[in-house]
Amino acid sequence: MKRQLIVGVMGGGAADPKDREDAYQLGALIAENGWILLNGGRDAGIMEASAKGASENGGLTIGILPDDDDVRVSDYINIPILTGMGNARNCINVLSSTFVVACPGGAGTISEIALALKTGRTVICLNFDTGDIFKKYSENGQLFNVTEPGRVVEIIKPEVVNLS
Amino acid sequence: MKRQLIVGVMGGGAADPKDREDAYQLGALIAENGWILLNGGRDAGIMEASAKGASENGGLTIGILPDDDDVRVSDYINIPILTGMGNARNCINVLSSTFVVACPGGAGTISEIALALKTGRTVICLNFDTGDIFKKYSENGQLFNVTEPGRVVEIIKPEVVNLS
Amino acid sequence: MKRQLIVGVMGGGAADPKDREDAYQLGALIAENGWILLNGGRDAGIMEASAKGASENGGLTIGILPDDDDVRVSDYINIPILTGMGNARNCINVLSSTFVVACPGGAGTISEIALALKTGRTVICLNFDTGDIFKKYSENGQLFNVTEPGRVVEIIKPEVVNLS
Amino acid sequence: MKRQLIVGVMGGGAADPKDREDAYQLGALIAENGWILLNGGRDAGIMEASAKGASENGGLTIGILPDDDDVRVSDYINIPILTGMGNARNCINVLSSTFVVACPGGAGTISEIALALKTGRTVICLNFDTGDIFKKYSENGQLFNVTEPGRVVEIIKPEVVNLS
Repeated sequence: MKRQLIVGVMGGGAADPKDREDAYQLGALIAENGWILLNGGRDAGIMEASAKGASENGGLTIGILPDDDDVRVSDYINIPILTGMGNARNCINVLSSTFVVACPGGAGTISEIALALKTGRTVICLNFDTGDIFKKYSENGQLFNVTEPGRVVEIIKPEVVNLS
Repeated sequence: MKRQLIVGVMGGGAADPKDREDAYQLGALIAENGWILLNGGRDAGIMEASAKGASENGGLTIGILPDDDDVRVSDYINIPILTGMGNARNCINVLSSTFVVACPGGAGTISEIALALKTGRTVICLNFDTGDIFKKYSENGQLFNVTEPGRVVEIIKPEVVNLS
Repeated sequence: MKRQLIVGVMGGGAADPKDREDAYQLGALIAENGWILLNGGRDAGIMEASAKGASENGGLTIGILPDDDDVRVSDYINIPILTGMGNARNCINVLSSTFVVACPGGAGTISEIALALKTGRTVICLNFDTGDIFKKYSENGQLFNVTEPGRVVEIIKPEVVNLS
Repeated sequence: MKRQLIVGVMGGGAADPKDREDAYQLGALIAENGWILLNGGRDAGIMEASAKGASENGGLTIGILPDDDDVRVSDYINIPILTGMGNARNCINVLSSTFVVACPGGAGTISEIALALKTGRTVICLNFDTGDIFKKYSENGQLFNVTEPGRVVEIIKPEVVNLS
């Protein structure tokens, strides 16, 4: 197996049905493109939905857990990485992802957007409005706002060509 | 020495003179109240200014460094804690502070506000406008916006009485 | 893909030819058994050799890097997890592995044996003599000493049946 | 307050009376020399005893907790640093200490000795026999074995002069 692109999908542990459906579609698209999906690994919300979408469409899924045991790992995660570090694992999520997609979430998801931008990652917000707080990153082309999972793929694809 | 309140002061490694002056005054007020100042420990921006303010007014200062050496520790930090963990140390900053004050900064500071709110800390933004992104925390009284260092102390003081 | 057993392989960044050959054989055996190999991810010593053995025999390899970039990732690592946390990543290595194999190494490897034992992992030392320091774990059947890669598999296999 | 030497004291959460007494005396000596004591911060074993010794003799004590709350902080710790990172905090303990003293303990303490040696710290084992496993560090003068708390001070003092 050659090394493949890792796309991080962040988002809330609690999520409404529309956002979970978007996360599922995003996971499916990531798998169909031959990319690896990385997320927070738990059996809830955007994490569970995106892992399910990737897993049910032949993709490989990695979960970076805050926990030191596997009690709360999603069934759709192939590779659980147990950190035992709580929110500090958010830094690992963004460092290990070449692109970070942010689905709707709370303060934890915002911390991941902020850390990803600081670390130089391209961030794509999927129906997650962060207002003007990260405006300078939108202006320099590091932060995107989209409303359809398919648009995420359209943004990543040409950049992948540039990477290789 | 009895255990004393720890107040975290976050903010940018680059900061303009007015913000550095505010950070200095805030550090001084923290010291004058007998509280301990905790920040990111480096010799720049809000970190340096707030540590200087506390240190020159008889306070104790703790710096939680991202680095694994002390090359970039501010001279005004009494106790440098070397984590060697990069941005993951932001989580330690907020966990170890009972109150978190956010001075103007960039994405790193926003990650600390987000992590602090998620972790249940009271956060006081001093001349740092985060827009509506953390609105629900403003509404429930966990997040405050102020424009004067003295106001920070006025918010912390009555809560300290409740803690003890 | 169903979730598969993760076997951690620790050992020195510098290693002599015999130990690298053992690590290669161990990696190959891990792959042939359908298990995932996890190690420290760098392009040197036991890490490189064990990843090469697994990768060249159809296995999946995960590297938990101390670094915040991929400059030193082994070519035989399929999934590099960038922690940016230096030696603190040793804790993630052992938490994420159901079994930990320790090949010859230095103080870093000893720290991983110690953390693995503390965390309740079964540890198998392959030609790595730790003297009497972990004697109580040898006595209670948590720590094994072997001299052939094949013996590692013989120890893991029956325990895997018990896990499932 | 000028920056002062930080001496880390590691050791078991469970400890027998003689070892706790030694840890208390060591803490007292650290305080009397004007140094800061750093340990794992909990209310048990060597941590509690060494913090008590320093605190009751006018010293400043810092505890680097594995926990994300202060439920298990020793009463003799002045400054609890909450990491929420479990054993990964062991790396912070050794990075933040200029000298590391290891009192009797289990696998956690051995991991700290190993990490301290790897990180270049001078390590002094006080009645804690690690056999031959770290022999090369004994031979190059980085690891010492002593049986009296007073000997720890005799080893540190001349090196402090060299540092400054």
